[in-house]
Amino acid sequence: MSGEQELGITESKEHSPGEWYAEVVQKAGLADYAPMGGFIVTRPRGYALWERLQDHLDGWFKETGVDNAYFPMFIPESYLEREKDIVEGFDPEVAWVTHGGHDELEERLAVRPTSESIIAPFMAEWVRSYRDLPLRLNQWCSVVRWEATETKPFFRTKEFLWQEGHTAHATSEDAWEETMTRLGQYERLYEEVMAIPGMTGRKPEHDKFPGADTTTTIEALMPDGKSVQAGTSHHLGTSFAEAFDITFTDEDEEERIAHTTSWGLSWRALGALIMTHSDDQGLVIPPALAPTQVVVVPIWQADTEDEVKEYAAGLAADLDEQFRVELDDRDERNPGFKFNEHELNGIPLRIEIGPNEVEDGEATLVHRPDGESEVADADSIVESVDEALETVYAKLYAAAEENLEENIREAHGRGEILGTIGQHGGYVKTGWCGDEDCETAIKDEIAAEIVMLPLDEDEGPVHDTCGICEEEAVETAYFAKSY
Amino acid sequence: MSGEQELGITESKEHSPGEWYAEVVQKAGLADYAPMGGFIVTRPRGYALWERLQDHLDGWFKETGVDNAYFPMFIPESYLEREKDIVEGFDPEVAWVTHGGHDELEERLAVRPTSESIIAPFMAEWVRSYRDLPLRLNQWCSVVRWEATETKPFFRTKEFLWQEGHTAHATSEDAWEETMTRLGQYERLYEEVMAIPGMTGRKPEHDKFPGADTTTTIEALMPDGKSVQAGTSHHLGTSFAEAFDITFTDEDEEERIAHTTSWGLSWRALGALIMTHSDDQGLVIPPALAPTQVVVVPIWQADTEDEVKEYAAGLAADLDEQFRVELDDRDERNPGFKFNEHELNGIPLRIEIGPNEVEDGEATLVHRPDGESEVADADSIVESVDEALETVYAKLYAAAEENLEENIREAHGRGEILGTIGQHGGYVKTGWCGDEDCETAIKDEIAAEIVMLPLDEDEGPVHDTCGICEEEAVETAYFAKSY
Repeated sequence: MSGEQELGITESKEHSPGEWYAEVVQKAGLADYAPMGGFIVTRPRGYALWERLQDHLDGWFKETGVDNAYFPMFIPESYLEREKDIVEGFDPEVAWVTHGGHDELEERLAVRPTSESIIAPFMAEWVRSYRDLPLRLNQWCSVVRWEATETKPFFRTKEFLWQEGHTAHATSEDAWEETMTRLGQYERLYEEVMAIPGMTGRKPEHDKFPGADTTTTIEALMPDGKSVQAGTSHHLGTSFAEAFDITFTDEDEEERIAHTTSWGLSWRALGALIMTHSDDQGLVIPPALAPTQVVVVPIWQADTEDEVKEYAAGLAADLDEQFRVELDDRDERNPGFKFNEHELNGIPLRIEIGPNEVEDGEATLVHRPDGESEVADADSIVESVDEALETVYAKLYAAAEENLEENIREAHGRGEILGTIGQHGGYVKTGWCGDEDCETAIKDEIAAEIVMLPLDEDEGPVHDTCGICEEEAVETAYFAKSY
Repeated sequence: MSGEQELGITESKEHSPGEWYAEVVQKAGLADYAPMGGFIVTRPRGYALWERLQDHLDGWFKETGVDNAYFPMFIPESYLEREKDIVEGFDPEVAWVTHGGHDELEERLAVRPTSESIIAPFMAEWVRSYRDLPLRLNQWCSVVRWEATETKPFFRTKEFLWQEGHTAHATSEDAWEETMTRLGQYERLYEEVMAIPGMTGRKPEHDKFPGADTTTTIEALMPDGKSVQAGTSHHLGTSFAEAFDITFTDEDEEERIAHTTSWGLSWRALGALIMTHSDDQGLVIPPALAPTQVVVVPIWQADTEDEVKEYAAGLAADLDEQFRVELDDRDERNPGFKFNEHELNGIPLRIEIGPNEVEDGEATLVHRPDGESEVADADSIVESVDEALETVYAKLYAAAEENLEENIREAHGRGEILGTIGQHGGYVKTGWCGDEDCETAIKDEIAAEIVMLPLDEDEGPVHDTCGICEEEAVETAYFAKSY
């Protein structure tokens, strides 16, 4: 059993979530640490997950009028300085290229931390008339932000992969509709593909994207009680259009300023995915994202080897058209080792075939998330596997949804807010006066902050007064510790 | 007609190929120049071509055992220095990151010019036993090489998009097979997808990839008589394995050194594509790569508008399932303007629908490359369009093949070699003694170089003696001017 110990997860998700997460990422072959602090190497199993997320999101973007493009990875310092909030917001985190070959550059180049400052000037060139609007561009690329924090693969890295969408519109209303369309697509990705319910809202004024009118966010609650900012979509108003002169001639021949948006989702989504569903046996992922959805494991003795292997191979072949299937008939590994390995790697469904299954024309299906097993007829195996994978998705979503629902609590008064977050984690909703100082009062004590403000509050804030200062509340704030 | 002049190509492919190329790239909306010299912005129409190339190549890679991954865009200087040929080969072209935020870095980071030096150390970690081999990784990313030459979109840019494959094998033979597999896939991409015949061979010793045992290349001849290095695949031997300690335990329990390969194809393929097929009306591309394959243009008078538009819309709908179709029924543009615009943008097939076509239940199909038109029955329009697109591909390939075949010439003697290249361009094949000085003698006179040496010369070199120095020839060399 020595191989199994080396293979298996030794840390506990409940008791040491940070170490457990790092172990799952490495042992399931998702990522490794690069020699430079803050950088990771995304291994094939991790990258395959990212490619599937991309496929979904990219398809939805294209269906809704977005074109992919590619802008330079470097931004001249003078361009970065043209929008004052951007330079203030990102200057401390920029990696600078100062030399090309043996020569010092005349102007430093920023490795893009985000691309508004290099995309906006081209939008200004390409947009002439109202007929050119809306203009919707997206690029899949990597960006660099030189944050000096501990590396956490996919959650906190100096270089990360993401998509960044940039659009220009004739009116503020159009830009707002765009902002919400993309936020909705992020929510759909989390819910339908990643089996994670999201909470959508906006960020407080002091936590907006630099230069934005409104930053909307989708937040996902992790099992350790912390919130992940899972994707953001910004209504940029006219700040970038003014800084970069994005104007257009309207139908009435008047020159008008455009309204822009930007929206991004990074490989942090992979972090949220791994963290949410995985367990002390290793990786757990929904079937839609799994590189291998079903593994067929024949279990034989010397006298049954041929018939069991043949039966298992036939079953795998039957499933191959509709699912991503692997047949694991390796001689050199015993079934226990194989089970552990497939659990570690997060294959959603295992099919066990022994002499009994062969005799009865059946197959035993074992669900990865909880080990539940069911017996299916070989004749209708495609339908049974289809249903089992649906069930696996439903179980994952239900567990994540239960975690979210159980961990939204109301609190009022500084002590109660601090106590509730301290004891349970999760979200604490309270009335808020809108003053950053009231957030700071909580943040200084317990490192929790306002992660989200609901977008629609037809019935007004949850409390009449601010949960911290007791002045009049203008809205509801969701406090949480955050990744 | 004033709009048409602004829209159309004004330069001549034959007389000013450089200016013509730049004009096609910009007016067909493929790319723009970035504010920093040497960088370009790839616009949606250009990027869509790249995405289709990617789809084909990536699919073939995956079918043949390659996994995608992602490695950091930065390489510490000390890693770059570990393989001496790499550092010598790329040091003059590296863009250096020296600062992160407000702090100077302890060690400079190279923006990757190619990734052997950051991938090899991880291969060394992941490869333990012969069971881990072959290891085949690929990444789609951008790289930076600080060359101080004039920018030519897709051909010569400081940052470019590419894929780089990196593999490790147990034996030199396996590595050689891998090298040739990838070269074959590049050739297939050029021929089947891009409609460009390629010439495969290897580079002379003095022009190999730094550290490589053998650099193989696929060369494509452009209409202006210059050769494009269209993709390269390197047998790296054990140089990187030795520098980064990629070893494995073989079946006999012996520790052995691995043999590695790397292979890359960049967006230069887009340059070759545009340059090869396009003409004085604008972009020409094969149907497999065209974002829009067929445009349906109704042509009406006031009294026929409804029936012509309806008929055209019905036809477009019939084609929509199998092809990428656009219906251009804009009122504000006349047919002539539309034809010019679709020709500029390279839509392979135009379908014209006027009252006559409606009356006869027909459609007029016009091939982009040569304006040839044919009449098809509306009843069998799907089959007719399918055939027409096949014909368009065949025409493009035939023209490129003819250009290639007509421009491979034999020459012997310095004067004859120089004269032949000077007069005709294209490839000149001659016997070669293997000495770089003989290449230099030609290069200094006319900027032509040895672009390729054939891989199999069962019948020996084309001449018994070197075409330049008259010593004994050891192989055949193909001289050409090169992009």
